[in-house]
Amino acid sequence: MPAQILHSTPRADGFRMPAEWERHAGCWMLWPQRRDTWRDGGKPAQRAFVEVARQIARFEPVTMGVNPDQFENARAMLPPRVRVLELSNNDAWARDIAPTFVVNREGAVRGVHWRFNAWGGLEKGMYFPWDMDALVPAKMLEIESLPRYRAPFVLEGGSIHVDGAGTLITTEQCLLHPNRNPHLSRGDIERLLAEYLNIEHIIWLPRGVYEDETDGHVDNLCCFLRPGTVALTWTEDRADPQYERSAEALDTLLTARDARGMPLEIVKIHQPEPMTMTEAEAMGLDVVDSAFLRPVGERLAGSYINFYIANGGILLPQFGCRHDRAARETLAQFFPEREIVGIAAREILLGGGNIHCITQQQPAGIKSAAADRSGDGNV
Amino acid sequence: MPAQILHSTPRADGFRMPAEWERHAGCWMLWPQRRDTWRDGGKPAQRAFVEVARQIARFEPVTMGVNPDQFENARAMLPPRVRVLELSNNDAWARDIAPTFVVNREGAVRGVHWRFNAWGGLEKGMYFPWDMDALVPAKMLEIESLPRYRAPFVLEGGSIHVDGAGTLITTEQCLLHPNRNPHLSRGDIERLLAEYLNIEHIIWLPRGVYEDETDGHVDNLCCFLRPGTVALTWTEDRADPQYERSAEALDTLLTARDARGMPLEIVKIHQPEPMTMTEAEAMGLDVVDSAFLRPVGERLAGSYINFYIANGGILLPQFGCRHDRAARETLAQFFPEREIVGIAAREILLGGGNIHCITQQQPAGIKSAAADRSGDGNV
Repeated sequence: MPAQILHSTPRADGFRMPAEWERHAGCWMLWPQRRDTWRDGGKPAQRAFVEVARQIARFEPVTMGVNPDQFENARAMLPPRVRVLELSNNDAWARDIAPTFVVNREGAVRGVHWRFNAWGGLEKGMYFPWDMDALVPAKMLEIESLPRYRAPFVLEGGSIHVDGAGTLITTEQCLLHPNRNPHLSRGDIERLLAEYLNIEHIIWLPRGVYEDETDGHVDNLCCFLRPGTVALTWTEDRADPQYERSAEALDTLLTARDARGMPLEIVKIHQPEPMTMTEAEAMGLDVVDSAFLRPVGERLAGSYINFYIANGGILLPQFGCRHDRAARETLAQFFPEREIVGIAAREILLGGGNIHCITQQQPAGIKSAAADRSGDGNV
Repeated sequence: MPAQILHSTPRADGFRMPAEWERHAGCWMLWPQRRDTWRDGGKPAQRAFVEVARQIARFEPVTMGVNPDQFENARAMLPPRVRVLELSNNDAWARDIAPTFVVNREGAVRGVHWRFNAWGGLEKGMYFPWDMDALVPAKMLEIESLPRYRAPFVLEGGSIHVDGAGTLITTEQCLLHPNRNPHLSRGDIERLLAEYLNIEHIIWLPRGVYEDETDGHVDNLCCFLRPGTVALTWTEDRADPQYERSAEALDTLLTARDARGMPLEIVKIHQPEPMTMTEAEAMGLDVVDSAFLRPVGERLAGSYINFYIANGGILLPQFGCRHDRAARETLAQFFPEREIVGIAAREILLGGGNIHCITQQQPAGIKSAAADRSGDGNV
């Protein structure tokens, strides 16, 4: 039943959002081409996305959704093993635009189709219109013949992380922002997250990364490494505007409990050296009234937290910076069975996000009551 | 290997085009919306296509490819069991635009991507441009992760029929038309058909149906009912311009042999009463310089031969005409295990074709040296 729209909720039906480290069927991406997001007509970003897709495809199937006018170019630039499909979109952030997938214990997979308003709609959203983005989840689920839940509120996949064991982590800055769901209270949102992701407990961090254009998506700030352990982007420089944001997140995490009632182990990952957009980079962008302006000298919201967990690998942003190596080494400790793959990620960052933002995992349906939810069980 | 492009040929690799009655994995269609092909903004044709899709979906999976701007409308009009995918196209003739699928004895399925020039290119083709049509086979095969042969010549699926046992039937009017492959001789085309469809013998009929806009596609004139038996559209009215066309085809068929060296049984199916486009119908069409003009009073190329064989059914055009019943009864004799489903088809005919023209079967890969090629083995 490809087009089946379900009028219940994942929780009611026994479906939950798995952790990113649980086994994937594959990874979805969308092809970058907006000239007001990606400099030089998108060509440098396309090369960076090709490298991300090529590396992920070493570990799991990758499907790239592409606007009709870029189909031939994307097909030619991507390696043969990456599946390229026509999939109209307004920009390339699969994490936020694609559905969130949920699974049950019988191995069934379904999708949650969130409302999408381009990170804020007409109230400082990133661009207008976003009509094609809004259809992407329906189209992806049709392609896969998976049933679809239509969630009645705005959410982007990058604004949440789960441990697969009942805990969700997010930020107040984003989920309570008046440009997302102004008609919903914190309590309403908590109830909806519980219904649509089947989580038991929410950890609310105050704010995301400094100058993050998404209104503070958690996936650039903090993520689970395994149940009970989170990674947090960090700096020791008190003069850096990121310092107070990371420090207040740390305060929250130090007193937080997860769904099991356990305290969290917190792993600090030092942020990259502050980066700004150069004049040459800014001059490569179209200036469009209906889209977010990215000026010369703007601080880029660089973070190593914005990595992607593939079946046998970790795709980690690298910035040619002295902190790159520490990030690699820290993640290698927590994912000993996965290969740490560093990707030169500045071109993705220039568009306003990073590797996690441009990927969305589709979990494998695994029929097992004992599906391994631990850090490295399913590589 | 989704994007695998094969540089050999189906014949070299042991793949052949199966007969339409061999078992299908499903059926591809494309959604009608051109305002210069389909009257009244395409709405009556859309309703007719919905009925075709709905009926075929009773027998086998149906996927409808839709332009981005019609995705929501098509999804809403089609029943849930029909899979709806974004698939940009210039018009809705899946038979001619989609790939031709080939199979081998191990159950593998591949696609042949023909060159396409909208039934004649700039030399009296049906419209300009046809750039999106030309990409449809690549996109369909990517979706299905099937390897693709890129054939080096223009061909439309509706211009050929095969018996699955080595025989192909076509028309000189179409395949030798100077607006298709003027650089290729009859011998060149015969060799290419043998390579790309793995057939042994070609029966050349002179011309297609009177006023057929495709330059005489065989699928509106004559088709196989089983190896050794063909159906031919027929009229007893010598004053009808179709008479001499059917009569000359009959003459050819009477002396023809199939790939086994056997003569053919010929089943005449009386054509529908001559129909013409009404003023109201013609007024519903946009007039566009770059597209074929369909004037009031134009004879419509109606034919019962333009039916589709689904796994357990025959989808047969009906015109509200006194010959409808005989067509149903004749096909029922030859397909006793399949349900004969009549479809009111005038709206499809107004666009220039019929049910066979708007469908393309994707064969099931069946691992068997003894895959049944007889008339009703695989329902």
